[in-house]
Amino acid sequence: MNKRQITAGILIIGNEVLSGRTKDVNLQYLTLKLGEIGIQVSEARVVLDEEDKIISAVNHLRSVYDYLFTTGGIGPTHDDITSLSIAKAFGIGHEKHPEAEAILRSYYKIGDITEARLRMAELPVGAHLLYNPVSHAPGFCVENVYVLPGVPKIMQAIFEGFYNNLTGGVPILSYSISTLLGEGIIGTDLGVLQLKHPEVSIGSYPFLKDGKTGTSLVARHTDQVLLEQVKNELQSLIVKLGGDVLSDLNNSET
Amino acid sequence: MNKRQITAGILIIGNEVLSGRTKDVNLQYLTLKLGEIGIQVSEARVVLDEEDKIISAVNHLRSVYDYLFTTGGIGPTHDDITSLSIAKAFGIGHEKHPEAEAILRSYYKIGDITEARLRMAELPVGAHLLYNPVSHAPGFCVENVYVLPGVPKIMQAIFEGFYNNLTGGVPILSYSISTLLGEGIIGTDLGVLQLKHPEVSIGSYPFLKDGKTGTSLVARHTDQVLLEQVKNELQSLIVKLGGDVLSDLNNSET
Repeated sequence: MNKRQITAGILIIGNEVLSGRTKDVNLQYLTLKLGEIGIQVSEARVVLDEEDKIISAVNHLRSVYDYLFTTGGIGPTHDDITSLSIAKAFGIGHEKHPEAEAILRSYYKIGDITEARLRMAELPVGAHLLYNPVSHAPGFCVENVYVLPGVPKIMQAIFEGFYNNLTGGVPILSYSISTLLGEGIIGTDLGVLQLKHPEVSIGSYPFLKDGKTGTSLVARHTDQVLLEQVKNELQSLIVKLGGDVLSDLNNSET
Repeated sequence: MNKRQITAGILIIGNEVLSGRTKDVNLQYLTLKLGEIGIQVSEARVVLDEEDKIISAVNHLRSVYDYLFTTGGIGPTHDDITSLSIAKAFGIGHEKHPEAEAILRSYYKIGDITEARLRMAELPVGAHLLYNPVSHAPGFCVENVYVLPGVPKIMQAIFEGFYNNLTGGVPILSYSISTLLGEGIIGTDLGVLQLKHPEVSIGSYPFLKDGKTGTSLVARHTDQVLLEQVKNELQSLIVKLGGDVLSDLNNSET
């Protein structure tokens, strides 16, 4: 097992996310799935469908993190400029990929093979295909950059097909509890507990739910034994301050 | 009315978003509200609760865009490091803000004024307060950087309080339609139409919904007359290719 922390960046490409028309749901999916295999998403960016913005973000994120996953902009229309931008980011050519073209030609009836659809077979030279069981037009990867579509169902289907082959790290375990005590009540003691265990990431998240307010605490580390110890200390802290230890209310949006 | 395009960056700060525990809903809210007053969100980033990451993203985004809005990391616990990071990004001091402290002291009962809660009154020197009608601990702004909490209801309440004072641009109007024709069928003609109107942003978004597949087209520009012309041309394009013009299926997640 690889003991080093494995990291990833995520790049979400699309005017529709920055205009608010589309609510991105790919970030959370990818962060959860990657976390399961010990890949920590360390940064995400959302950029417009503009070549210079895409190239600059790709080149930064692929050099800083072990992996980069992009979503969006690989369809057949004029605003799908991700593939060409990836080629430019790597300084490599962009041409019809024979296997991708064969996949598209075997999927579509002859009359349906449009010029626009064949654009989806134009990929950076040397790209590896990531197969698409839903709508067939493949994603692809170049070195450590995995290029996926934006439509969640299709993105997920492609991702599921290759993600067992990613090199993960030690899975990060987490322990969560909630209390109706406010952050302002537990904050000072919690800070002391964090200082005692600097290697454990302890997060504190206020919630407002069904008229109740309180705090969820999340401890994350790769070591089960250490996490168990922090769990006991978190529970003692809450009890000491007069609170009840509740299961995590999993208030995922607040 | 300011005719220049006004732009904004958004910085979402928090381990919980990059671990997948929390699904961010603030990006879409801010992009939609800012779009209404002609402020185009041009980039968003999500970073961990790490000082160097926050400082670097803040200094980039505040210098490239007219506005920067941050969410997350301004509560009372040890993992709330946004405020101090903003001060460091600007190279200014960080100390107790008398008015913020007065607000907190008048809101909490004397026994409830904890050291942790008073941390929320420590702000970059010279920061302007952004009032919080829900939980009182204020957001703040320094120059063009608006610093907001991560809890959506509180973030929105603060935002509503100051957003009429932002300097907007010309509101961007949009026109959307859907068709059951696939992107691969309309892609080539659509590309020609985009070339004819390079100043109009025309986006094409495939959808899969209720067993139907098709394409939504979105044209965006500030000029109503031009947009009306593009609308007519988009409708003609769909009809020419044998499709029906449908109202936008508004399939916001696909």
